[in-house]
Amino acid sequence: MIGVIITGHSKFPSGTLSALELISGAQDYVSAIDFEGAMSPTDLFDQLKETYLAFNKHCSNVVILCDIVGGTPFNQAAKLSVEYDNIDVFSGISLQALLEPMINKEQGISEFSRLLIESSKMGILHFNKEIS
Amino acid sequence: MIGVIITGHSKFPSGTLSALELISGAQDYVSAIDFEGAMSPTDLFDQLKETYLAFNKHCSNVVILCDIVGGTPFNQAAKLSVEYDNIDVFSGISLQALLEPMINKEQGISEFSRLLIESSKMGILHFNKEIS
Repeated sequence: MIGVIITGHSKFPSGTLSALELISGAQDYVSAIDFEGAMSPTDLFDQLKETYLAFNKHCSNVVILCDIVGGTPFNQAAKLSVEYDNIDVFSGISLQALLEPMINKEQGISEFSRLLIESSKMGILHFNKEIS
Repeated sequence: MIGVIITGHSKFPSGTLSALELISGAQDYVSAIDFEGAMSPTDLFDQLKETYLAFNKHCSNVVILCDIVGGTPFNQAAKLSVEYDNIDVFSGISLQALLEPMINKEQGISEFSRLLIESSKMGILHFNKEIS
């Protein structure tokens, strides 16, 4: 089983998780950590680490999904991943790209990563227009 | 100027807009419409149309950005876009892909679309790993 932490600026993480749960139902070992308000980078790091350690008791791997490259959420996730060898950090996530991997979390980290990367390659659809 | 409506399931739209504003500051003619709770598809359509009509007084074009392909938010946005010829609908958005077009909304619809599509092609980054 893969544990999943969604992190990012303001309410992007909790907003993304609320949509995932509306579409796919509630899921085990998935958490959203919003970086907002008076939180410091250290506060965020501590929350990421605490959640990782809790998930790590039940999960073979933990994936941290970040909103954008750079910025405090990505930087703190990257820092944590250097401390533990079963953390993978992705950034630039879209809800569209998450749907398929999130319902296949029991298939292991290689398959989760493959599904996430393949789904993200679909990119954006422009309704009624061809994208070249 | 381009007007932008972000829509999608649950709190994905408001969560995404909160992150955009934290990173890029408050912006004119940008609105988030969450599809949640007891809203019907018709309620969402009416809110999209009301927001479009308000933005249309000041904007040359309105872009509706949806979380995923299919589902009520995308379907209602697509339906509205068929009624008015200055609406473009995109789905599969990521926060990463939005950053550059959102600070260039005054450059017109062609440039906005180009920046959005180009940014979305970057897809996901896997920290410390090559994506082939």
